[in-house]
Amino acid sequence: MDAISIATAGEVFDLLRDDLAAIEQEFARQSASNVAVITDIAQYLIAGGGKRIRPLLLLLSAKALGSTSHSRIRLGAVVEMLHTATLVHDDIIDEADTRRGRPSSNTTWGNSKCVLAGDWLYMQAFSAALEERNFHVLDLLISLTQQMVEGELLQIEKLGHLINEEEYFDLIFRKTACLFKVSMQLGAAVTHATDEVEAQLGEYGRNLGLAFQIVDDVLDLTATEEVLGKPVASDLREGKATLAVIHALERGTGADREAIRTVLADRSFQQVTHPQILEILKRHGSIEYAMDTACAYAEAARQSVADLPETEAKRALLWVPGFVTSRDR
Amino acid sequence: MDAISIATAGEVFDLLRDDLAAIEQEFARQSASNVAVITDIAQYLIAGGGKRIRPLLLLLSAKALGSTSHSRIRLGAVVEMLHTATLVHDDIIDEADTRRGRPSSNTTWGNSKCVLAGDWLYMQAFSAALEERNFHVLDLLISLTQQMVEGELLQIEKLGHLINEEEYFDLIFRKTACLFKVSMQLGAAVTHATDEVEAQLGEYGRNLGLAFQIVDDVLDLTATEEVLGKPVASDLREGKATLAVIHALERGTGADREAIRTVLADRSFQQVTHPQILEILKRHGSIEYAMDTACAYAEAARQSVADLPETEAKRALLWVPGFVTSRDR
Repeated sequence: MDAISIATAGEVFDLLRDDLAAIEQEFARQSASNVAVITDIAQYLIAGGGKRIRPLLLLLSAKALGSTSHSRIRLGAVVEMLHTATLVHDDIIDEADTRRGRPSSNTTWGNSKCVLAGDWLYMQAFSAALEERNFHVLDLLISLTQQMVEGELLQIEKLGHLINEEEYFDLIFRKTACLFKVSMQLGAAVTHATDEVEAQLGEYGRNLGLAFQIVDDVLDLTATEEVLGKPVASDLREGKATLAVIHALERGTGADREAIRTVLADRSFQQVTHPQILEILKRHGSIEYAMDTACAYAEAARQSVADLPETEAKRALLWVPGFVTSRDR
Repeated sequence: MDAISIATAGEVFDLLRDDLAAIEQEFARQSASNVAVITDIAQYLIAGGGKRIRPLLLLLSAKALGSTSHSRIRLGAVVEMLHTATLVHDDIIDEADTRRGRPSSNTTWGNSKCVLAGDWLYMQAFSAALEERNFHVLDLLISLTQQMVEGELLQIEKLGHLINEEEYFDLIFRKTACLFKVSMQLGAAVTHATDEVEAQLGEYGRNLGLAFQIVDDVLDLTATEEVLGKPVASDLREGKATLAVIHALERGTGADREAIRTVLADRSFQQVTHPQILEILKRHGSIEYAMDTACAYAEAARQSVADLPETEAKRALLWVPGFVTSRDR
């Protein structure tokens, strides 16, 4: 691929600055309720930041197809709201204490209010999407949300158990790649693109989402608490086997497998320490394997948009996968 | 009103038997997921029964306007699914042990799975409603769900506090009457009735829903555990003041007010017993006041459909309010 066709971070930011600011405003506007506690929780979640990568994808998808309608702003806010709703419910389920370096919302407001705040955010997202008066947009969003919720339930069923790669990929598709895919598809849907173009952009989102989540899972194993804004190795502590761990399980010695099995079953590092697990993963090249897999999906994402006309947005889409795989948080 | 124009229970059941059976089938079909635990929870909730009063209202509303389309079956299942979704999340919030005489779903499956099962039921309801390809239907359902969720949050905010009648009526509108209203409106929407007719039928639902919830709240105070299928006076135990209690608070002596205040603040009958509270309510005629209020709303419901053409469905609509106010569970 021609190096000159890939944008820089600065160019991408310049390209999207106004739209991202508009989405931020729309997100804030949509999160105001006449029930004070909802507004409080929603504003807290907005202020918590996050990478806004889902709206960014939607914007780039729409821009790559030449859209300038307000729909991209509204739906950009919608995908971020849906993402936020899933985080609120996930934090209840995972009994998370922190999220992005701050107390999680359930710690501050309690589970009851956060169950309902999550429900409200889902409904608000659908309510905003409904203003588009586009059934296809609603089909995409409702089906997406159901797949995400099912994924989270499947995840709970598998906690503490050894899973294989196929199960892992199904889980991360539902957890992350599915919303990346739909964000890209929505960008196409608002431009009334052909099914083929929408599918192609969706494929970019799916590949990018898989790469993104694999990297997220690697960082959970290898980064520090200061960088992550949450305790390290929380996946293992919650009984979740991710790609590097699955790789080591399949290649490790009996003792290696037993050590990993123990941590997953105990959901703690009391019997086997975090450095011991990292040593096992390093010995089998499991971290590299996971990162190589992420990079392969990143490359597949780039390939998915190869046929698009040459635009700034396309150059930005070619930049995103490298950003995703090289980030450290 | 002419006595002869009101149906009997047997006539209503004959009129709706086939449709209610079809809704039961549709509800079961819609509740099957490829994620086993969702199907388990959903089937458990369906088997738990419930009065199916929301689908019944939707059917009568549609029938009163001459509809025979499949939409009434599909949307009948949708309103029951939405109702079920709110119950699942409410049981988590109220930390309920029992529901309709059986262990509540959260007791059996735990909070995490039930948060997600509730989410899934919401999405499944919207997904089914989306098949109608009718934006007005979706507007009604999404706005309804948001109002219900906000109501539950407002309820939490007011737990343990004294509230006035206005606050009480806002809460029971959101908790119950809002879905009754929308069930009636949906019956009109699928027949493409005029806005005026839809509003009239909605008004019937609102009045009936208020009557229904006032009676529910009275039964919580006065019925026995065997009849209710859950502990008596659970509202007071959860810190919820309902209409009869609010009436007694406004008319009681200082000692009466203090006794009620204590139970609400303690959320238990340790300092003041349930019979003591019942004595206060009886002394001030508060139970009668609440029942009279319910009967007035029931009558208002009947008046709301007075202008409808004379049909079997109209006669049934005239029967429902009396059924609602005279039930003992």
